[in-house]
Amino acid sequence: MVNIRHDVIGIGNAIVDVIARADDDFLVRHQMAKGGMSLIDEARAEAIYKAMGPAREISGGSAANTIAGVASFGGRAAFIGTVKNDVLGGVFAHDIRAAGVSFDVPAFETGPSTARSYILVTPDGERTMNTYLGAAQLLSAAEIKESEIAAAKILYMEGYLWDPQNAKDAFLKAAKIAHQHDRIVALTLSDAFCVDRYRREFLGLIKGGTVDLLFANEAELKSLYETGDFDAALLELRRDAKFAAVTRSEKGAVVISKEEVTAVPVFPVETVADTTGAGDLFAAGFLYGFARDLSHETSARLGALAAAEVISHLGARPEKNLADLAKENGLL
Amino acid sequence: MVNIRHDVIGIGNAIVDVIARADDDFLVRHQMAKGGMSLIDEARAEAIYKAMGPAREISGGSAANTIAGVASFGGRAAFIGTVKNDVLGGVFAHDIRAAGVSFDVPAFETGPSTARSYILVTPDGERTMNTYLGAAQLLSAAEIKESEIAAAKILYMEGYLWDPQNAKDAFLKAAKIAHQHDRIVALTLSDAFCVDRYRREFLGLIKGGTVDLLFANEAELKSLYETGDFDAALLELRRDAKFAAVTRSEKGAVVISKEEVTAVPVFPVETVADTTGAGDLFAAGFLYGFARDLSHETSARLGALAAAEVISHLGARPEKNLADLAKENGLL
Repeated sequence: MVNIRHDVIGIGNAIVDVIARADDDFLVRHQMAKGGMSLIDEARAEAIYKAMGPAREISGGSAANTIAGVASFGGRAAFIGTVKNDVLGGVFAHDIRAAGVSFDVPAFETGPSTARSYILVTPDGERTMNTYLGAAQLLSAAEIKESEIAAAKILYMEGYLWDPQNAKDAFLKAAKIAHQHDRIVALTLSDAFCVDRYRREFLGLIKGGTVDLLFANEAELKSLYETGDFDAALLELRRDAKFAAVTRSEKGAVVISKEEVTAVPVFPVETVADTTGAGDLFAAGFLYGFARDLSHETSARLGALAAAEVISHLGARPEKNLADLAKENGLL
Repeated sequence: MVNIRHDVIGIGNAIVDVIARADDDFLVRHQMAKGGMSLIDEARAEAIYKAMGPAREISGGSAANTIAGVASFGGRAAFIGTVKNDVLGGVFAHDIRAAGVSFDVPAFETGPSTARSYILVTPDGERTMNTYLGAAQLLSAAEIKESEIAAAKILYMEGYLWDPQNAKDAFLKAAKIAHQHDRIVALTLSDAFCVDRYRREFLGLIKGGTVDLLFANEAELKSLYETGDFDAALLELRRDAKFAAVTRSEKGAVVISKEEVTAVPVFPVETVADTTGAGDLFAAGFLYGFARDLSHETSARLGALAAAEVISHLGARPEKNLADLAKENGLL
């Protein structure tokens, strides 16, 4: 019997975001699929960086953003992901630890450099991501320790882990350990293109019971069931999944279980500066509420609140203390 | 006779800012002088970084911020400063070039790493800077090329250059070249503590005619003349300086020459997020106007506009296009 030390442990790509504003023409000229995440090699990374405007470097990574959000709500949180012992690896490690997250994976001394995502934010606030995975893709089952996975109520993993084969192995090992210890396994589908790459496998994880709690946005859900009809996709999801939270941008979010469907609205935002991290931070609020046995509605509203905070500024990590923000809004 | 290629060429420390929010207690605990800039060694840099919260990396450096601002107004701008060929050196070079600034100083292959300033932003928006100069302090007369200095209408330099001896040599060489070619030499006093370190020498530069155009804020001016009386300090400055622009935070700015005194108000700002770069960006607007022969009043208002933009967000480089902003406000 392992004692619970963390509310949530996350596994994902450890990435530093390089964020710049760009117009839509820039995306067209550089053949980027707006709103998506493309994996790029080092040569393309250099070409994009050279072409893009003045940038800022802010720690990112989908699951890492979520875990930083859980900690900002006051949750006990841990993260597993791999960086190199270089400047950006130091930046990633500093930022996640400074956010109050346990992060103990030693940095690699050799091999590819720490992962970067070159993020172009268009005037409408939409972000388009170009990710050089570098050291993040070296995550393997070796980084998964039973004592760590077993000590968290919820194991949270990103669909992006499905891209490198060894990260997939890490994913499956961690899920197995979590279930052996009666923990909850959560997955975010990450990106509609990612779903397109691994649809059959993701459906297998959901239907087969590897995943207890699923996070998806509308586009990912439609991609999962290859339909343009949201309601039809949701019906299929209710049949396949034990429990899921689906975000719908300005339409709010829907939480589904076998028993009930709960819809919550978005929190109003004055100006959408940058949508990067909206889904990640929704998951943060929801996971915190879920781990603390709050109602589905309150959990989803915490998610909506955190998403609203993160899209109001550049960067995918919260700038305000989310526990304070939740108290101000009467949610905690 | 060298043809004009640039409105302004700046010389300063090439620094990447590492910016985090902190409360006033943090400054007290770590013995930092609120609102100032302290030079630190690598060991203290590591200790501060370890203690500070999640941060973001954004290119900075006082004169570099100013020059990026001049370019954002549509001015032709160049910068001289030194970095190492490391990740942050690449970040600095990318960001200033992407801002439209000519930056041709080759990065050092050996020696100390690229300069960082660890900036703590307190809830009132005030910033406290801890700067590890690293490769920036290797700037020397070798980096000053006559063909570059002579090709700019205005040579703009920061008082911080007075800290390393070899940068001081670079400063004096550049000023001499500029005057040989009938260009204008501008200096910002940088920081009240910096003025305290080099008061006699700065007064010598101003009285002796090395400096044609002086930028100072209220605290720096008071420090220069060792008085708590702003009006008395201003009188002394009118006697000593050919031409000066003095910023007074929320009280606006005053432009003085032998002939006249022109006061302009601040531009309203909803929330002061981070005062880093306020003075740098005031100088940017003023220099742009000055180089384009606009009135003192319009030049100062361009400065106030740029300062308002930069204090409304984290980071000391403009996020909006300043030429567009000036047009929207009827100034260009």
